[in-house]
Amino acid sequence: MFFASDNSGPTHPKVLEAITLANDGYAMPYGVDPLMDKVRDKIRYIFEAPEAAVYLVATGTAANSLALATLCNPWQTVFCSRVAHIHEDECNAPEFYSGGAKLTLVDIEDAKMTPKTLTAAIEYEETRGVHGPQRGPISITQATERGTVYSVAEIQDLCAVAKSHNLPVHLDGARFTNALMALDCTPAEMTWKAGVDAVSFGGTKNGLMGVEAVIFFDPKHAWEFELRRKRGAHLFSKHRYLSAQMDRYLTDGLWTELAAKANNANAQLSRALRQIPHVKLDFEPEANITFASWPRKVHQRLHDAGAVYYVFTGTLDGDDPEEYLGARLVTNWATTPDQIDQFVSLVRGD
Amino acid sequence: MFFASDNSGPTHPKVLEAITLANDGYAMPYGVDPLMDKVRDKIRYIFEAPEAAVYLVATGTAANSLALATLCNPWQTVFCSRVAHIHEDECNAPEFYSGGAKLTLVDIEDAKMTPKTLTAAIEYEETRGVHGPQRGPISITQATERGTVYSVAEIQDLCAVAKSHNLPVHLDGARFTNALMALDCTPAEMTWKAGVDAVSFGGTKNGLMGVEAVIFFDPKHAWEFELRRKRGAHLFSKHRYLSAQMDRYLTDGLWTELAAKANNANAQLSRALRQIPHVKLDFEPEANITFASWPRKVHQRLHDAGAVYYVFTGTLDGDDPEEYLGARLVTNWATTPDQIDQFVSLVRGD
Amino acid sequence: MFFASDNSGPTHPKVLEAITLANDGYAMPYGVDPLMDKVRDKIRYIFEAPEAAVYLVATGTAANSLALATLCNPWQTVFCSRVAHIHEDECNAPEFYSGGAKLTLVDIEDAKMTPKTLTAAIEYEETRGVHGPQRGPISITQATERGTVYSVAEIQDLCAVAKSHNLPVHLDGARFTNALMALDCTPAEMTWKAGVDAVSFGGTKNGLMGVEAVIFFDPKHAWEFELRRKRGAHLFSKHRYLSAQMDRYLTDGLWTELAAKANNANAQLSRALRQIPHVKLDFEPEANITFASWPRKVHQRLHDAGAVYYVFTGTLDGDDPEEYLGARLVTNWATTPDQIDQFVSLVRGD
Amino acid sequence: MFFASDNSGPTHPKVLEAITLANDGYAMPYGVDPLMDKVRDKIRYIFEAPEAAVYLVATGTAANSLALATLCNPWQTVFCSRVAHIHEDECNAPEFYSGGAKLTLVDIEDAKMTPKTLTAAIEYEETRGVHGPQRGPISITQATERGTVYSVAEIQDLCAVAKSHNLPVHLDGARFTNALMALDCTPAEMTWKAGVDAVSFGGTKNGLMGVEAVIFFDPKHAWEFELRRKRGAHLFSKHRYLSAQMDRYLTDGLWTELAAKANNANAQLSRALRQIPHVKLDFEPEANITFASWPRKVHQRLHDAGAVYYVFTGTLDGDDPEEYLGARLVTNWATTPDQIDQFVSLVRGD
Repeated sequence: MFFASDNSGPTHPKVLEAITLANDGYAMPYGVDPLMDKVRDKIRYIFEAPEAAVYLVATGTAANSLALATLCNPWQTVFCSRVAHIHEDECNAPEFYSGGAKLTLVDIEDAKMTPKTLTAAIEYEETRGVHGPQRGPISITQATERGTVYSVAEIQDLCAVAKSHNLPVHLDGARFTNALMALDCTPAEMTWKAGVDAVSFGGTKNGLMGVEAVIFFDPKHAWEFELRRKRGAHLFSKHRYLSAQMDRYLTDGLWTELAAKANNANAQLSRALRQIPHVKLDFEPEANITFASWPRKVHQRLHDAGAVYYVFTGTLDGDDPEEYLGARLVTNWATTPDQIDQFVSLVRGD
Repeated sequence: MFFASDNSGPTHPKVLEAITLANDGYAMPYGVDPLMDKVRDKIRYIFEAPEAAVYLVATGTAANSLALATLCNPWQTVFCSRVAHIHEDECNAPEFYSGGAKLTLVDIEDAKMTPKTLTAAIEYEETRGVHGPQRGPISITQATERGTVYSVAEIQDLCAVAKSHNLPVHLDGARFTNALMALDCTPAEMTWKAGVDAVSFGGTKNGLMGVEAVIFFDPKHAWEFELRRKRGAHLFSKHRYLSAQMDRYLTDGLWTELAAKANNANAQLSRALRQIPHVKLDFEPEANITFASWPRKVHQRLHDAGAVYYVFTGTLDGDDPEEYLGARLVTNWATTPDQIDQFVSLVRGD
Repeated sequence: MFFASDNSGPTHPKVLEAITLANDGYAMPYGVDPLMDKVRDKIRYIFEAPEAAVYLVATGTAANSLALATLCNPWQTVFCSRVAHIHEDECNAPEFYSGGAKLTLVDIEDAKMTPKTLTAAIEYEETRGVHGPQRGPISITQATERGTVYSVAEIQDLCAVAKSHNLPVHLDGARFTNALMALDCTPAEMTWKAGVDAVSFGGTKNGLMGVEAVIFFDPKHAWEFELRRKRGAHLFSKHRYLSAQMDRYLTDGLWTELAAKANNANAQLSRALRQIPHVKLDFEPEANITFASWPRKVHQRLHDAGAVYYVFTGTLDGDDPEEYLGARLVTNWATTPDQIDQFVSLVRGD
Repeated sequence: MFFASDNSGPTHPKVLEAITLANDGYAMPYGVDPLMDKVRDKIRYIFEAPEAAVYLVATGTAANSLALATLCNPWQTVFCSRVAHIHEDECNAPEFYSGGAKLTLVDIEDAKMTPKTLTAAIEYEETRGVHGPQRGPISITQATERGTVYSVAEIQDLCAVAKSHNLPVHLDGARFTNALMALDCTPAEMTWKAGVDAVSFGGTKNGLMGVEAVIFFDPKHAWEFELRRKRGAHLFSKHRYLSAQMDRYLTDGLWTELAAKANNANAQLSRALRQIPHVKLDFEPEANITFASWPRKVHQRLHDAGAVYYVFTGTLDGDDPEEYLGARLVTNWATTPDQIDQFVSLVRGD
C-alpha cells in the first residue's frame, strides 16, 4: 500500500531489459550514441515536430531548470502556479540555473492558472521600467501538482495570453503522459499546436529509472541548451543508458500503457473513496493523484496497517481523532487493484 | 579496438544484475533508500572514516563541481593543474556551481602539480588585499589526465602546502581506483591521511553505468552539500538505482578488480608499444591511459582498420606521412588482450 | 511642485561643501581614507554599537543586495513585504547578489508585515526537507514603501519571530531617518536593541548625493562584506568623496534636521489634503510620503500646472473625469511650504 | 610625492564646479536627466559614432564587468592579458557579472597581447566541443597595466584576430585618454575603426570624482546593458551628478588636457630617472606610469622622506641594501614638476 509518490515505484521490466540490451560493447559517449538518434526520431514523430531539438537528462528538476534557463534572462520573472513544483520543490534550482531570475506566483483555481490570473500577474510587471523584473516565460504544470489536468482549450488560452505579451511557454510534463491519457488529444495538440514552446517530457514517474526529455519545438535553442546541460553537469558520458530507457518507453506504446494503468488505478481509488461518507475529495482527480481528507483516526488506522502516503494538510500528531487531515495519494503503473482495495477497506474501516 | 575513453565501455554485468535486484517494489526516494545506508557504511569502512559524509551523483562533473562549490567561496580561486578536467572539460561547471569562483592554473611536471609550482601559484594570490581573488581549495586529479599517478608522498606534500595556507584539498578521483591499484596504498593513505578533505570517488569510468560518490571526511559539510546537490538538480528520486550500482561496486572487491584489469591492459599495451622503434611514449603510463606518438601514416593505418582513439596532438589531415602525431589510448575493464594485440600489431605494421 | 521622489531633490549645500573640502591633495583609495575612520566612529557612536562593521556604498540597491547576500545562502528565501523595494524595484538584484536566493512575499497590513503573516510565511517553508527553499533572513523596510512606519514594538515583534526561528534580520532604511524622526526613539532602539542584525542606512534620499551605509552589528560579517562589495564593483577608488558626504551628514545633526524637514513638509501636505472633501488618504502618512486619491480631472489640473508626481493606481488616460486615481507624493528636505500650498490649492481647485 | 595611483589624486576643480552647478532644484533620476543627453551627444560626437549606446557607472570594475557580461555568455571564456586588471584586481567581478564565465590568460610582450599569443589562446579553445568553454570576447587594456600603449595598428591586428573568429572586442580604457594622448590618433581610430565593439571609457583616474562611461558602438546592446546595470545596483538615482562630471570632462578639452598633463609629468619623471646610473626602467613608459628598479637602500631613502608608491617586485624588508626592487610610479593631472624633481633627487641621492 504505497501511495507516497510515483517516483518510488519500480522501473518497468521492459525498460530494464532495454538497458541490458544496450550494454553491448562500446558506444560513443555524451549523447552521440545511436540509440539517441532513435529517441530523437521517435519524439519528433510522436510530437509531429520534425525539427524539434530533443535532449535527455536524468531528473525532472534538471529538465525544468535547464529548459527555463534557456528561455529566460536573469532579469526576468517566470510566471507559474502558486503551487508549482519549480517553486515549491526544487530548492531554488530555477533561480540557480537562470542566474537569479524570479518566480512570480500566479493565483490558481483547482491548482490551475487561469487566463485572468495569468494576465493580472503579467500586467503587474513591466510597469516600473528598468526597476522591476522583466516579464519572462510562463511555466504550466501538466498534470498539476494537485492531480488536475488543463484541458487543451485551457492550455491554448494560457498560451494566447503569453503570446499576446510575446512570452514563451514551458510545460512541466513530469506527468505528461498521465495528462495526455486524461485528455482525448495528441501530444502535439497538448503542446506546440496550443502554443507551448518547450516541454519537460517526464519518464521517471512513469516507469523509467531516471530519464526526462527536454523538447524545444524551435531548434534555435539547441546549442545553447547543450552548453547549459554540460555546464550544469547533466550530460552523461554513458548516455546510451538514458537513450535505451527512453527508446523503449516510446516503443510499442509502453509510455501510454503505463500512464493509463496509473490513471486507471487512481480512478478506481477515487471512485471507491468517494463512496465513503467520512471521506472528502479535495480536488477532482483527473490523472494519477487523489487528494482526499478524512479523520485523524482513519489516518492512524492506515498508518498502523503500513500504508505509506503523505499527510498533506495537518499532522498525525494531535488530540482530536475526528479532525480531518488531507492525504495525497499517488498511483503508478505498478499499483495493483488489490492494494487499492486493501487501502480503501482500511479507510472505510471494514 | 576501442581506446577512445573508459567512459564508453560497457557496464559490468554484475552491476546490471544489482540494478535488476534493486528493482523490487517500492523504495523511499531521494537518497533515503536502504541500499544507500549500505553504500555509506562500505565507503566509510573502506576509507577508514566512520564519520565521513557520503553522497552519490551521476556524473563526474557534478561530483567535482558540487564538492568544490562546497569548499569554495565565489570570491576565491581554485588551484588546479593546467590540464585539469575541471578546467578543460567541464564547460565552466566549477565556475557555475561556485557562483563565479576562478580557477588558477598551476604549472605541472608529468601532468602533476609540484609543491613548488603550487606554492608559487598560491603565493601570487592574496597579495592585493580585497582586489584580487582570495585563495581557495586545491584540486588534485588522481590519476591525472595524462595517465600519471601522484605518489602518496606527492599528495602529502601538496596537502602540506595547502594546509600551511589553511586551504582545503579536493581530490578528483574520476580514476581513483586506477590510481589506487597503481600505488601500493590504502584509500585512507591516498586521501585523508595525506591531508585530502573531499573526494570525487569515480565509478562510471570503471564499470558502473553512471555513479560517482562525493566524500567529505569532515561531516560538517553534509547539509550544505545536500542542499547544493538538490539545487543543482542532481538528487535522484529513484536514487536506489545509483545506490545499487555503488553497493555492488564495493562488494567482493569488484571495484579494485575492474581497475586492476584496466591497468593491466594498459601495461600490456604500453609495454608492447615501447618495443616499437617508431613509437614514442609521451608520459609514463601508470594507470589506464597511454599517451604515445607515431607517424601519421601509422595513424592512418589504424584508422582504416577501425581503431577508435583520440589523436591528441596534431590532426590526421596533413601531407607529411612521417610526421609524428600523439595518440591517447585508454583501456578499461573490458579491454581484451586480443584487442591490444591487434592494435599493437597495426601500430607495428605487421 | 516636484513630489515624484526624494531621490530627485538636490544635495544639501553643506554636503557639497564637505566634498569640496575633501578635495585636497591625495587620499588613500578604496575606503582607507581618514574620513572613513570618522564616519565609522560616528555611526558606531550614534548607534551605540562600538563593534559594528560599517561600510559605504553609493546606491540603496547595492546596500540592500550586498547586506542580504551576506546574510543569506543561495538555497534560502528572504522574507519581505509584498511591496518591498527589494522585490519590486531592484530588477532582481537581491537574487543576483545572493546567487539565486528566493524572495518570499509576506502579507501586509498598512504596508507592514505582522508577526502573524511573517510567522505563516516562515512556517510554510522548511516543510519539505531538502526540496523546498530553506528559511533565510527577514527584511523589514523602515519607513515602508507606502509611507507608514513600524513602531519599535512592531520591529521587536517581527525580530522576535525571526529569532525564534534563528533567522537574521535586515532593515532596509532607505528612509531610516524619516522613520526615526517619526518615532520617539534612538537608532539603537529601532535596530539592534529590537533585534535587527544589519541595516541599510540611507543618505541619498535625505540630502546626500549618493551614499548609503551598511551596518552589521556583529563584526563577523566584515571581511565577507568587503569581498562582496569589491566583487560587486561597489568599492570606490576615490572613496573619500563618499566618506565626506556621510561624515557631514552625521555632523551637527544634519541627518535628523533634513529628515525632520521632509517629514514636516509631508505633515503639512497631508494635513491640508485631509481637509479637502474630494481627497481620500490611502495610508496614514507617518514619514515623508503621502498616498492620496482624487478624481482624474484634479490630476489633470495638477498635471497641466506642472506638478510632478507618480499616478500610482490607474492612469491619466481615461474617459471618466470623476474616477479616483491614486497619487504618491514624496517630500524631501528641500520641499518648501509654498510648493505645498500651491499644490494643495490646485488639488482643492481654488 | 604621491605616485601610488592616479585614483588617489584630487578631482579637478572645474569638475567640482560642474557638480555644484548641477545641484539646482530637481532633476529626473536614474539616467534621464538632461545632462545625460548632453553627455551622450558629446561622446557620440567625439567617437564619431552617432548611434552608439552610452551609459555611465561610477567604478571602472563596474564598467568592465557589465560591458563584458553583455558581450559574453556564462559558458564562454574572455581572452585577456595575463596581467589584466579584470583578472588581477577585480575580485572575480567579471566572473560574477557574467554568471561564471572564465578568463583565459593570454601571453604578453611589454604587457601587450600579440596576434600570435591571442591566436594561440583562441585556437586552444573550442577544440573539445561542448566540453570546454566556448570562445568569448577579447578584452584589451589600453593603456596597459604596465604603462605601455598599444599602437592603433596593434589594436587593429588583435581585432582582426578576434573578427576572424567572430568574437567581439572590449577595450578597458581606465586610462583611455592617457593612451590617446600617447598615440597620434582619434578616439574612433583607437576603437571602432580598429574593430573594438565596446569601451570602458575611464574618467576617475583622470580628474573625475568617480565616473566611467560604457560605450557600445552597436546600439543593439543598449537595453540589456540597462537591465544589467540596474540589476548590478549601478544605476544611480541622483544620476545627474555623474552626468555633470562627464559633461564637464568633455567640455573645452578638459579630458585631453588632464591626460596630457599626467603623461607629461610621467615623461619628465622617466626621462630624469633614465639618467641615473643605478636606475633600470622595466617597461617603456608611454602613458602615465613608469616601472623602474633601484636598490633597496634607495627605496628606503624615499620611504623615509615620505614618498608614496608601490614597491612592485620584492619587499622593503630584506637585508641586502643593494638588491634591486621594482617601483610602480603613477602620475596624474595634479602631479607637479616640483614633486617630480624632489622625487628624482631622492632617487639620485643628491
